Amino acid sequence: MKDSLAQGLVCIDCAATFPLTYRLQCGSCGGLVEVSYDLDTMRQRGPSLLAGRGLWRYAALLPVVDPSHRITLGEGDTPYLDCRRLAAELGVRGLTIKFEGTNPTGSVKDRTSATAIGAALAFGFAAVSVVSTGNAGSSVAAYAARAGLRAFIFAYERASAPKLLHMAATASDLILYAGVYDDLIGHWDRLVDDGLFFDVGASRNPYKHEGKKTLAYEIAEQSGWQPPDVVVAPVAVGETFIAIARGFRELRAAGWIDRTPSLIAAQATRANAISRAHAAGTPLTPISIGYTVAEGLAAGNPGRKGEWVLRWLREQKGLAADVEDEDILAAQRRLARSEGIWAGPTGVAPLAVLIRLLAEKRLDPDQRFGVIVTETGLKTEAALPPRHGVAYDYASLRRLVEQRLAGP
Amino acid sequence: MKDSLAQGLVCIDCAATFPLTYRLQCGSCGGLVEVSYDLDTMRQRGPSLLAGRGLWRYAALLPVVDPSHRITLGEGDTPYLDCRRLAAELGVRGLTIKFEGTNPTGSVKDRTSATAIGAALAFGFAAVSVVSTGNAGSSVAAYAARAGLRAFIFAYERASAPKLLHMAATASDLILYAGVYDDLIGHWDRLVDDGLFFDVGASRNPYKHEGKKTLAYEIAEQSGWQPPDVVVAPVAVGETFIAIARGFRELRAAGWIDRTPSLIAAQATRANAISRAHAAGTPLTPISIGYTVAEGLAAGNPGRKGEWVLRWLREQKGLAADVEDEDILAAQRRLARSEGIWAGPTGVAPLAVLIRLLAEKRLDPDQRFGVIVTETGLKTEAALPPRHGVAYDYASLRRLVEQRLAGP
Repeated sequence: MKDSLAQGLVCIDCAATFPLTYRLQCGSCGGLVEVSYDLDTMRQRGPSLLAGRGLWRYAALLPVVDPSHRITLGEGDTPYLDCRRLAAELGVRGLTIKFEGTNPTGSVKDRTSATAIGAALAFGFAAVSVVSTGNAGSSVAAYAARAGLRAFIFAYERASAPKLLHMAATASDLILYAGVYDDLIGHWDRLVDDGLFFDVGASRNPYKHEGKKTLAYEIAEQSGWQPPDVVVAPVAVGETFIAIARGFRELRAAGWIDRTPSLIAAQATRANAISRAHAAGTPLTPISIGYTVAEGLAAGNPGRKGEWVLRWLREQKGLAADVEDEDILAAQRRLARSEGIWAGPTGVAPLAVLIRLLAEKRLDPDQRFGVIVTETGLKTEAALPPRHGVAYDYASLRRLVEQRLAGP
Repeated sequence: MKDSLAQGLVCIDCAATFPLTYRLQCGSCGGLVEVSYDLDTMRQRGPSLLAGRGLWRYAALLPVVDPSHRITLGEGDTPYLDCRRLAAELGVRGLTIKFEGTNPTGSVKDRTSATAIGAALAFGFAAVSVVSTGNAGSSVAAYAARAGLRAFIFAYERASAPKLLHMAATASDLILYAGVYDDLIGHWDRLVDDGLFFDVGASRNPYKHEGKKTLAYEIAEQSGWQPPDVVVAPVAVGETFIAIARGFRELRAAGWIDRTPSLIAAQATRANAISRAHAAGTPLTPISIGYTVAEGLAAGNPGRKGEWVLRWLREQKGLAADVEDEDILAAQRRLARSEGIWAGPTGVAPLAVLIRLLAEKRLDPDQRFGVIVTETGLKTEAALPPRHGVAYDYASLRRLVEQRLAGP
């Protein structure tokens, strides 16, 4: 039984169409390709198309046609949390956090791993591969293990300890790259073109990309098909941002929602190629970047997906902004203490961007904001903040508690 | 609108009954108390009583009566994963993993934090407290933050770095205890009896305990009300084990399931007071314990809940067993590589116990087994396993990939 409405691939530049085969670029102009769907059926059937739970609830709108290829570790269906205390602190009408840290490997990457590994199975590959700072690597390795495929994970030796340990535990083949990191992607692209393995990278594969569309679907469904006025999403090379934009666009085209949210592209200042080009009104120019605590946003050359984001921002009059590491760490602490949500620096960058834009009065606070928080805080490697006291017996414990209870 | 079927508290020893107030023991004999429910209504209404998603879907069967006290971070509704590859390796008819690592703070503790913090709100407390090796502390702190309560978290200075960081980020008051750890619980019990804060510990509070019952409810519902033949659950002081036993017992009493699974109590050999007493047929005797990688199972004196577990095992002819640290670490690696599930040592101990019991032919393999895996692997602090290679340019990358592809 074919329940997927996926129809084919279409070039985002020249609109050439192709069948649903393994294809990383347009055969005509070399542009990026995306998956197209039967939106008429989507319109007619409405949400009755959806069935089951988690990411594969949206299987009709994903490109993995054979149900036996729909690998799952329980991804998706992540919390969509109404944050009234933080909304009041920030003075906005509404604030919801889409917390992706509860995915099986702790990040939004599990959405793309599910559809990517499904496509690898569909196209008969026995090995998949990705270059990763950590989240993508452990996610791809976990889903490959679940599917019985080999996973070649290329990581930089400076990745954080929890991320390295996670990759080492799940990957069939973990390879550390000791050369210049900026060169690694180029080498790896050649290995992909040599056909050694299925490309599970963020830059070209339309099947992988597609899994993150479900973020938009879930936000829409969890809000009763009344998504927030504004959604803030992170941008490294742009995969998450574009997937969300595509998801809302499809829902609007099929009449499942009445209006699409405005999107804000959130970057780290130390890797702000898109935000910078958007502000200056110039073409996208790769920049040389250093370390940022938002490791998952560390892309100096967002490539063609970055150009896609920039074009989208200009056409839709979207907003882009970036934040310094100290703002990101402040947002991380604030989210943990005000709402109990412990997210990593990469994950909270969009919240830091929202806080900055509100402080600069560049946003109307009388709106409902949704913020994508892409990863758990459990992979954070950081110095411990100061503790509130040390005790060694009953008397010192009691004294400490009473002192603190009497304080602010 | 009152939708909870909770009726009152009942002593597990003398059956004395009490109203639903803050009470940590029987006023008559000093025994532990548990919450009782209107099982007649549960039987008549059936699963139509359930509504919504996550843990609070089971609000009718939980003791937090006022919906405004039902604090949530999106806990529950965790993956229940059919593990066919691992089942085949172990030679059993069926194996499902209930993976609690996708809870908001990465462990099963979020279930008890939700009902405990709900009870603290119901009974008007402004501060809560727990003694923790890490998981409970960060979970309680997160839920307290979400509810706007203060959380006094008492931790031992040797807790793992990811757990300390998580507690420090979410707790209003993190206090490190530098004395003898075995003394801390006694000191802390006195502070509770002094009324300084609401008890969110595992040993006495019936409201906290209750949240973990939802593990049994979810397993039953996710298996189409046909739970596995055998469920393996961890035992430290016994909270999870008893909660699951209670949950299945209620479902059976109300006729929602036809039979309750057999339960196996899983312990670490280095903290095996219950397994040891069960095997020897002797009363529970506290033991002095050293370090075990299953940090969450490190309870030398399981106290009255431990006696409850032992009584249950004897009455129901349940099985108890324990495993050494190296078996636990082997099970951790095996689960990651065969199914892509990355769980912590505390979390995989029940799987290690199942593997041991099967190897010793103490279990009929022609059964469906369910295993509770209580925590994510992301809090694991361990030396990195060996990597599979290091490369520094295109040629060395390609050589490495080709060598490994040609290998086993």
